[in-house]
Amino acid sequence: MPNDSSTRLPVIKIADNEEIATNDALAIEEPLEIRLEHGDVNQRQVQNISVTMRTPGNDSELALGFLFTEGIIRKSEDVNTVEHCFIACAENKENVIKVSLKSSIEPHLHNTERNFYTTSSCGVCGKASINSIKTVSTYNNSNVENQVNADVLYQFPIILQQHQKVFADTGGLHASALFNSQGELLLVREDVGRHNALDKLIGAAFNKNLLPLDQYILLLSGRISFELVQKAAMAGISIIAAVGAPSCLAVQLAEEFNITLVGFLRDHRFNIYTQPRRILLSKYEDSY
Amino acid sequence: MPNDSSTRLPVIKIADNEEIATNDALAIEEPLEIRLEHGDVNQRQVQNISVTMRTPGNDSELALGFLFTEGIIRKSEDVNTVEHCFIACAENKENVIKVSLKSSIEPHLHNTERNFYTTSSCGVCGKASINSIKTVSTYNNSNVENQVNADVLYQFPIILQQHQKVFADTGGLHASALFNSQGELLLVREDVGRHNALDKLIGAAFNKNLLPLDQYILLLSGRISFELVQKAAMAGISIIAAVGAPSCLAVQLAEEFNITLVGFLRDHRFNIYTQPRRILLSKYEDSY
Repeated sequence: MPNDSSTRLPVIKIADNEEIATNDALAIEEPLEIRLEHGDVNQRQVQNISVTMRTPGNDSELALGFLFTEGIIRKSEDVNTVEHCFIACAENKENVIKVSLKSSIEPHLHNTERNFYTTSSCGVCGKASINSIKTVSTYNNSNVENQVNADVLYQFPIILQQHQKVFADTGGLHASALFNSQGELLLVREDVGRHNALDKLIGAAFNKNLLPLDQYILLLSGRISFELVQKAAMAGISIIAAVGAPSCLAVQLAEEFNITLVGFLRDHRFNIYTQPRRILLSKYEDSY
Repeated sequence: MPNDSSTRLPVIKIADNEEIATNDALAIEEPLEIRLEHGDVNQRQVQNISVTMRTPGNDSELALGFLFTEGIIRKSEDVNTVEHCFIACAENKENVIKVSLKSSIEPHLHNTERNFYTTSSCGVCGKASINSIKTVSTYNNSNVENQVNADVLYQFPIILQQHQKVFADTGGLHASALFNSQGELLLVREDVGRHNALDKLIGAAFNKNLLPLDQYILLLSGRISFELVQKAAMAGISIIAAVGAPSCLAVQLAEEFNITLVGFLRDHRFNIYTQPRRILLSKYEDSY
C-alpha cells in the first residue's frame, strides 16, 4: 500500500526481561520533492524548490503550505494544478509533487534564495531573522480581537489526542490542529516532521480560502520553535497554543507579530508568553 | 550573556483559572551559519555551507559534527582551526562559525550538492536515500560485536534525565548521549534541534578521535528519524536506543547498516527493531 501513513514491521518487545516477537505499526517517512512550474505558455519552466522528509498523505497541502509559508506563492487562485509526478523507480512511490501556477503568475522565488536567514545587512542573528520575515508576511495581528476562554483551551490536547489516529498507532507523529474559540476542532494534520504537519494544515486552509486564520486557535502537539511561529505568522494566526515549551526566539517573533503564545498546555495548566489579552479566565468572565 | 543555552522571560502561569505573573527559563534558539575555508595558501576560499537554528553552546562541535556527518570532512587531523566570526551587528551574537581546513586538504563538497536525496538515477525515494548514504559512509557494523544488557539499557533514560540540565530548566531541549556497555554516561549534548544535539555529540567524538563509535551506545531523548540514523551511521554507531518511536525508513536504514535499533525505551520496557543479537537479557546471561 504506497502512501499510507503507517506500516507494520517485525519487532521484539522486551518488558522486564521477557521478550515477545510480534509486529508493530510505524510511521512512514519518505522524501518529497516539491517542484514549481511557472512562466508564459511558450516558456514554461520547472524548478526544484525543496526536498523534505515527510509522512505520505496530504502531499498537495504540504506543497502548497510550504510554498505559501515561504512567501513563494500568495493566493490559491494563482495555482493551476497540483499533481504527483510518477518517476520510473523500483518502488514507484509518489515522492515528487509539482505545483503549476497560472501562466500570468510570477512566483516570489527571491524569497527562497534569501532563505529567511542568510542575507541581511547585519549578518545572521535572531533580529535579522525576525526582520526578514516581516518584509515577506502579509498579515499582522495588532488589531485582531480573537479571544478564547481558559476552560476551552484546557480541552484542546484531549480533543487532539482523540483525533490523532496515526499517532495512536505509531507513537511517532507530530500534529497541528485548528480550533475555533468555541473549542470545535476544524482541521488536524499529522507528520513525522512538525514543520510538515503545520505546512499541511496551512496548505489545507489555503486551499479552502480560509486565510488569514486570525479568528482561530492553532494547537501544536510538541514544542514551539522559531520556524513554527514563522509559518503561523505567514498564515495570520493570532493565537498559538502548544503542549510543549517555546524557544526564546519563538517568543520574540510572536511578540513582533502580536501573536498570543501559550505553552505547556496540559493538565488544566498553561503559560502565556505574549499578548495575554486574548485569553479569558472564567472568574473574570462577568466583566466582559 | 551571549551564548548561554537558556534565558529568563516574563510569563503568566495559569493553573485552574488562577494566574501568577512570574518569569521562566526558556531555551535559546539562534541561527548559526557554518562556513568552510579551504584551498592552497595562495588561493584560500570561504564557502557558506549551511544555516541551522540551534541553541548556542558547543558551536565548534556542532560545525564539525555537521561537516563530518554530511561527508564533507573526514578526519580531525584535516582541520586547522574552528572559530566564531564576529559580525558588525547590534546584537553581536556569535552566530557565524568558520571551520578552516589545512591547505593540503580538499573538502568533499559534492556531498552537499547531492544533499543525500536529490540525485540518483531513480529519482527521489527512500531506497535512493539509503543508497546514496552508503556511498558516502566509511563504516559498516556487520562484524561489530558490541553488546549491552537489558538491565543496563533500562537505566539510560534515568541517567540522561539527571544530566539534562538545560532541559530540566526549560522543558525545551532534545538530547543525545553516549554510553558504554557498562552503563556509564560518557558524553551528553542538548539542543532545540534534535539533529543539532546529535551533530554536537558526534563533533565532540570527532574532536577526541573516538570515531568509529562502534563500542558505545547512542541514546536519543525523542523519536528516531531517518536523518538521525544517517548521522549515527556516518559515525559508525552500532547500537541506537531512543525514548521515542522510530520511523519506518529509520528502521530500514538501521538494518542496511547493521545497526541495532531500540525504541520506546522507558519504564523497564523497550522494542528492538533490528539486529537483536547485541541486546542481552539477564535470564539468558548464563549461556554466554
